[in-house]
Amino acid sequence: MTSPALVTPVDAAPAISLATCVAPLVDALIRDADALRLKVSRGPRDALIVDAGITAAGGLEAGRRIAEICLGGLGRVALVPAGRFSPWDTLASVSTSDPVLACLGSQYAGWSLAAGDFFALGSGPGRAIAAVETLYGELGYRDRGDKVTLVLETGVVPPAEVVDEIAARCAVAPSDITLILTPTSSLAGTVQIVARVLEVALHKAHALHFPLEHIADGVGSAPICPPSPDFLTAMGRTNDAVLYGGDVHLFVHGPAEAAKDLATRLPSLASRDYGRPFGEIFAGYDCDFYKVDPLLFSPARVTVTAIDHGESFTAGGFDPILIARSFGG
Amino acid sequence: MTSPALVTPVDAAPAISLATCVAPLVDALIRDADALRLKVSRGPRDALIVDAGITAAGGLEAGRRIAEICLGGLGRVALVPAGRFSPWDTLASVSTSDPVLACLGSQYAGWSLAAGDFFALGSGPGRAIAAVETLYGELGYRDRGDKVTLVLETGVVPPAEVVDEIAARCAVAPSDITLILTPTSSLAGTVQIVARVLEVALHKAHALHFPLEHIADGVGSAPICPPSPDFLTAMGRTNDAVLYGGDVHLFVHGPAEAAKDLATRLPSLASRDYGRPFGEIFAGYDCDFYKVDPLLFSPARVTVTAIDHGESFTAGGFDPILIARSFGG
Amino acid sequence: MTSPALVTPVDAAPAISLATCVAPLVDALIRDADALRLKVSRGPRDALIVDAGITAAGGLEAGRRIAEICLGGLGRVALVPAGRFSPWDTLASVSTSDPVLACLGSQYAGWSLAAGDFFALGSGPGRAIAAVETLYGELGYRDRGDKVTLVLETGVVPPAEVVDEIAARCAVAPSDITLILTPTSSLAGTVQIVARVLEVALHKAHALHFPLEHIADGVGSAPICPPSPDFLTAMGRTNDAVLYGGDVHLFVHGPAEAAKDLATRLPSLASRDYGRPFGEIFAGYDCDFYKVDPLLFSPARVTVTAIDHGESFTAGGFDPILIARSFGG
Repeated sequence: MTSPALVTPVDAAPAISLATCVAPLVDALIRDADALRLKVSRGPRDALIVDAGITAAGGLEAGRRIAEICLGGLGRVALVPAGRFSPWDTLASVSTSDPVLACLGSQYAGWSLAAGDFFALGSGPGRAIAAVETLYGELGYRDRGDKVTLVLETGVVPPAEVVDEIAARCAVAPSDITLILTPTSSLAGTVQIVARVLEVALHKAHALHFPLEHIADGVGSAPICPPSPDFLTAMGRTNDAVLYGGDVHLFVHGPAEAAKDLATRLPSLASRDYGRPFGEIFAGYDCDFYKVDPLLFSPARVTVTAIDHGESFTAGGFDPILIARSFGG
Repeated sequence: MTSPALVTPVDAAPAISLATCVAPLVDALIRDADALRLKVSRGPRDALIVDAGITAAGGLEAGRRIAEICLGGLGRVALVPAGRFSPWDTLASVSTSDPVLACLGSQYAGWSLAAGDFFALGSGPGRAIAAVETLYGELGYRDRGDKVTLVLETGVVPPAEVVDEIAARCAVAPSDITLILTPTSSLAGTVQIVARVLEVALHKAHALHFPLEHIADGVGSAPICPPSPDFLTAMGRTNDAVLYGGDVHLFVHGPAEAAKDLATRLPSLASRDYGRPFGEIFAGYDCDFYKVDPLLFSPARVTVTAIDHGESFTAGGFDPILIARSFGG
Repeated sequence: MTSPALVTPVDAAPAISLATCVAPLVDALIRDADALRLKVSRGPRDALIVDAGITAAGGLEAGRRIAEICLGGLGRVALVPAGRFSPWDTLASVSTSDPVLACLGSQYAGWSLAAGDFFALGSGPGRAIAAVETLYGELGYRDRGDKVTLVLETGVVPPAEVVDEIAARCAVAPSDITLILTPTSSLAGTVQIVARVLEVALHKAHALHFPLEHIADGVGSAPICPPSPDFLTAMGRTNDAVLYGGDVHLFVHGPAEAAKDLATRLPSLASRDYGRPFGEIFAGYDCDFYKVDPLLFSPARVTVTAIDHGESFTAGGFDPILIARSFGG
């Protein structure tokens, strides 16, 4: 049941290269930059900067395409009308050809990039070339590539030191780095964050020590929230979209009992911090992110199917009242 | 907040050329004509005529692709199953990378083409090359292109005089004009009309003097109605799909009060003619289109988010009973 | 009303070649095999074998793409979140540019391939090159092609005799045959079976002697069921997804009375075997497939629009309780 494609000796070329899979999507994003209302320029150290909402207008479609880039070219993100939370009828729907590699190997915002006052978490396929996170050892995956693409949830262009660090860790020239910048308050940022609904489920499953090699597949969806210029409000809503409005269906190998246990523990409901809008929870912890229960970050409803046994387990549920308060407030 | 990309001196090449964006979609439509059950032929003055429902069968997928051509290659149209109006479960879902340019600059049926007994409203990217409508001055946009594509909601092939007029206005040879013909009663016509749900919201916002440069983004959806061979019934249903079944979410810049005012005035509910099937309204005005309140043409439900303030406003609502009467009758 | 494109003299090249339409999709499936977690190898007689769930992991996205290959490249299959059967929120949504050719000419599993202990029903575009089924005479369609692609719902690699038979019937070298293998219990198999919801409606319409040339268009959707390693359970659920959860909307030519009659007789409700999970029905007939009422195989709910008259007829309905029992059990 171990997925051989994920087990790559560090010196060998991987069976699947995220950098290769994502390249056509990054090229298309840059080629269509005007139509997508993105600004593309050369920034510090000549790195390519794609502004998706700082001075550029960006938009929902830009965010959708950036979300597919976050998934390393291994996933699809669609904006779908559905009546789950009327009138917030647009869901981000996420599916992948390989959820662990797409979501954890690429989409997860796991690379801390800091210099001076600047701080951002890097996500996207470039992480797998740097492989500075211990997660890559657990995945048994490391990518190679001449071009590095990262997505940063930030409202400012990173300084040269950050570009230098990426270049050094990835062994590429700074000019071969593409940084896609999506502020939390932007439309593109909103979509690319909400499109993490499947990723947060996989990340929490990993935190719960569920064996990643047992995760065969998954799909997820969550409502697109209205953005806010206030960072805390914007961050609160994108979290609420997942915590109180997100749905994930995982298909896993292994014992039915383990699938049941995962379903029980996975939804946000299982966290001690569940029940209030994320903005209130965060404020209650004096805006100290590290005081929030890390197990809160998961979809509202989770179904886990034990595919070796044909049994399924559902836990959690949507909270339409909280979504109404959060999105409308 | 003014979108610089839209401000193009008439003699300069625009930042985004609708003609360039749409070209691959038009080429693909013609290449796949047999599979899409379209008839492609040379018509008056050697213009390329794409018959999507006159003598050709056409179909829903042809209509979907024609709708994306109407949007100038800047939008996506999907046919999505959803339970909004059971059993009419198929929604046309519309999103774009740039709604004002895609919907008003291209999709809006704003170019009156008449000669003898023939009359049709031209829509699609070719309008922006001709730019005969005053709207283009307000958009500050004009396209250039060697190839002109227009979509006409008509059941007859236009006469040579219409081709000549298009050629003259666009400064192209008549043989470089492609006219895609979609009768109101056809399946393709039904889809391409219902897919105007976002466009009618933008057009009414414009009629209400809401500043177009404040419209940052939008998505829309409306149910695919069953066509009818009776023109008035077919026209009635496509209008009802939008007026009583359509949903639009706009994201706008500017004061929250202006967003609230727009939300209040935008839905069809705000019109004096709201409440009866469009066919009845039209008949009540002796089938004189110009007696119908122009502000009727808008989605049933509208949500407007003031993105500079993070506040949203919803008004209007669906009328499932009227949809049932209109579609089933 | 006869569709001329379907009437092809056997010796002439058809107006639409399924083999040509599907080729880019098959090439892409093989090129992306690693990302889709498929195993591609040379099997008996050097035929190309695409393992989508025997020893390979496969997955939902692999199944979605295989379903589009089954449709001969003339259809779209999407995985869409919708609330029809909570928590089974993922629907397979199917549309085509030409439903009779895509579903009956290609997708229908109509070619019996047997040798020794091996038995499978071949589906996909290669059937139209062999054209061994009497259905092709009725369709008036026969394809030509140098490459043959078939999808087999099987858990074992077919023996050389089966490859030889395909090669002989299609007049190609065995090495030009691609066999895509999707076990019933696999994720890919689940998707490609559930994506037959529109095809079963067309097949039953044919069995009811409704004229195929009167079928202008159609769309369908059905819930993705959780797979089971038990073949009978897996087969039961995929059937229940269609029989008790599937929705189809057909658009037909001809008299309104004929459309009404079709709507009345088409849904699974009209079968004598309707009402219990398929697994129970099958067991009740001692697992003899040929004792099951062939008219059972149809969607739960059907709407038929008589497009020459503008009238629509709906019959049948969803059974959420049965879906809950079947999928959850």
